[in-house]
Amino acid sequence: MDLSKIAVLITDRFQDREYEQPGEVFQKAGPQLILVGLRANTRITGEDGATARIDRAVRDVSVSDFDALLTPGGYSPDKLRVDPDAVRFAREFVESRKPVFAICHAAQILITAQVLKGRHLTGWLSLVQDIKNAGAEYVDAEVVVDRNIVSSRKPDDIPAFVRASLEMLGRK
Amino acid sequence: MDLSKIAVLITDRFQDREYEQPGEVFQKAGPQLILVGLRANTRITGEDGATARIDRAVRDVSVSDFDALLTPGGYSPDKLRVDPDAVRFAREFVESRKPVFAICHAAQILITAQVLKGRHLTGWLSLVQDIKNAGAEYVDAEVVVDRNIVSSRKPDDIPAFVRASLEMLGRK
Repeated sequence: MDLSKIAVLITDRFQDREYEQPGEVFQKAGPQLILVGLRANTRITGEDGATARIDRAVRDVSVSDFDALLTPGGYSPDKLRVDPDAVRFAREFVESRKPVFAICHAAQILITAQVLKGRHLTGWLSLVQDIKNAGAEYVDAEVVVDRNIVSSRKPDDIPAFVRASLEMLGRK
Repeated sequence: MDLSKIAVLITDRFQDREYEQPGEVFQKAGPQLILVGLRANTRITGEDGATARIDRAVRDVSVSDFDALLTPGGYSPDKLRVDPDAVRFAREFVESRKPVFAICHAAQILITAQVLKGRHLTGWLSLVQDIKNAGAEYVDAEVVVDRNIVSSRKPDDIPAFVRASLEMLGRK
């Protein structure tokens, strides 16, 4: 029985497939998903209409409650990065060395958290200059693994993203 | 008779008020607005449902065709900054020293254009770290004027944004 827990840092306007597909694979593999957002027990809606329910408010959780972090893209990260608790949570996750899975626009939260200096990372094409300016090396690949951060560019990269993420979870 | 022309660099998911309100004031003041986007003669839709029609494709226009540039926010800049012609157009506008009016997420295009080093700028709260990382000084004010760039943070800043923009146009 797998008792590990993955926090999904997410809010409205998330990219539907980037939450649903990794989420489904992770749950089948064992870990429990806990949706962490701006307010507990609220319903959120993805860019293409998928809905989900936030389990815990980010201000009420701690990195020690979880074994890994998944952050889907879409415009959800743009909304999360203005919340100091969400930024702190992402920063503490990267610094904890627990696995962090960041796809598409998720790099935006890591930029605001100021944890990318010297890291290799990929992300959605619109963020290339932002990622470089944050002191990271942008790598144009379907998945990039740098210590505890697994990153991908877009929905089409999900298979490689999930594969690398599961591999990292297995290594824990 | 005012023959001046303002290019509006815009695509889908623009922030409705940030296009409509400055656009209306500018047109009443004299200048003609030309909507410049990814494809000519296409219809675009704002975040809140406003629609507009693109007059010219950005790859077919030159800074010399216009007297000033307006870039509304919303998620339109995130979509424009992956287009090399849109980025080149924004870069050449800033370098031409003609007025550039950038509100909310518009700073994203200027970041990708790499023209912000040493400038004072404001923009939407989610971009604070991106603006700093681009080498600019982020100023938390309703409007910031630095040489030819007028910038504002959000829809509520529109009155100050329009006032400063009109003043700059009058100074030309």
